[in-house]
Amino acid sequence: MAKKGMLIVLSGPSGSGKGTIVSRLLQERDDTVLSISMTTRAPRPGEEDGVHYFFVSREEFENMKSLGAFLEYAEYNGNYYGTPESMVRTWLEEGKNVILEIEVQGAEKVMDFRSDLVSIFITIPSMEELERRLRGRATETEDKIRDRLATARRELQRAFRYDYVVVNDEVESAVARINTIIEAENMRFDRMDNEYIRGVLESC
Amino acid sequence: MAKKGMLIVLSGPSGSGKGTIVSRLLQERDDTVLSISMTTRAPRPGEEDGVHYFFVSREEFENMKSLGAFLEYAEYNGNYYGTPESMVRTWLEEGKNVILEIEVQGAEKVMDFRSDLVSIFITIPSMEELERRLRGRATETEDKIRDRLATARRELQRAFRYDYVVVNDEVESAVARINTIIEAENMRFDRMDNEYIRGVLESC
Repeated sequence: MAKKGMLIVLSGPSGSGKGTIVSRLLQERDDTVLSISMTTRAPRPGEEDGVHYFFVSREEFENMKSLGAFLEYAEYNGNYYGTPESMVRTWLEEGKNVILEIEVQGAEKVMDFRSDLVSIFITIPSMEELERRLRGRATETEDKIRDRLATARRELQRAFRYDYVVVNDEVESAVARINTIIEAENMRFDRMDNEYIRGVLESC
Repeated sequence: MAKKGMLIVLSGPSGSGKGTIVSRLLQERDDTVLSISMTTRAPRPGEEDGVHYFFVSREEFENMKSLGAFLEYAEYNGNYYGTPESMVRTWLEEGKNVILEIEVQGAEKVMDFRSDLVSIFITIPSMEELERRLRGRATETEDKIRDRLATARRELQRAFRYDYVVVNDEVESAVARINTIIEAENMRFDRMDNEYIRGVLESC
């Protein structure tokens, strides 16, 4: 049987640059895929259905929810976000690492009931930098920016729930740090496909 | 206060190349030191007192043992081996990573009562390769080689006790793998000296 993939939860405050980091990481690693979330929020300019999210109606989302089809789901800023479970399971069995890039609230739900994952919290070098990034995005109203900053403050307090903390001071460095984490995790006894040690164990 | 160093237990069967790997690693990293063990065994050609080991008599060793001065000690092939505790503690407080390069038996004793360490099991690509290396050493009798191979077989069964398994197929690669593990461990929430997150936590 092929070695199973690694389930990687990648989260952090809005504006921490999770999205950019993940795109770059996926370009570099062909052993890694991104789980696509389902959401009821409206697409932002440039976001495509089936690429960035599956955009669905509240009714469709609630229907899947009642069928237990989500690995996790959460309501966030008035919208639902969820991870369809079946796709993730298939990829892991094929030996692919699967990244769940999810909001802090959803991430904790996954961590609550799965112990076989690697969790990474992406953070920003300072609150000032976060504010600058949120304003630079220019797709949000002043009220929404204030909301997001307050949420970020609360979310940063949840960093202790994660295995690793990666400061996104610069995208290339942050991606390199995540690659380092993946390589190290591949050497964990529990994850290694160590035929040799297994062979010796069986022969004794 | 400075960030505390990391206690790294590095073990593996005799002939796995632990010693060579550790020397190379220490050349590359000035944040890392090697804990020097105390032993009652005779020095091998080229081994220096205070560099490779502190060579002491059985009486001296038993005296320190009775004072509780060892982090761990073990009897192995008829000789005592032990790690003096005070030196390790001082280095960790100074922010240095301290490597304990110890026999499998001693390693487990340290792992039994310390949870704040990173444990790495060095292994060889095959039993044939191990035999070749032991014979290449040419400092041991045929009986001793047979003993060591039998011990190695038993020791390999203890790999599951370690956080990480590093196959020493080639020294440079093995050293690079250990560097990767150290870098990843430095990003663990528990180890990160994340002033920013601490600042936000305290301001809320």
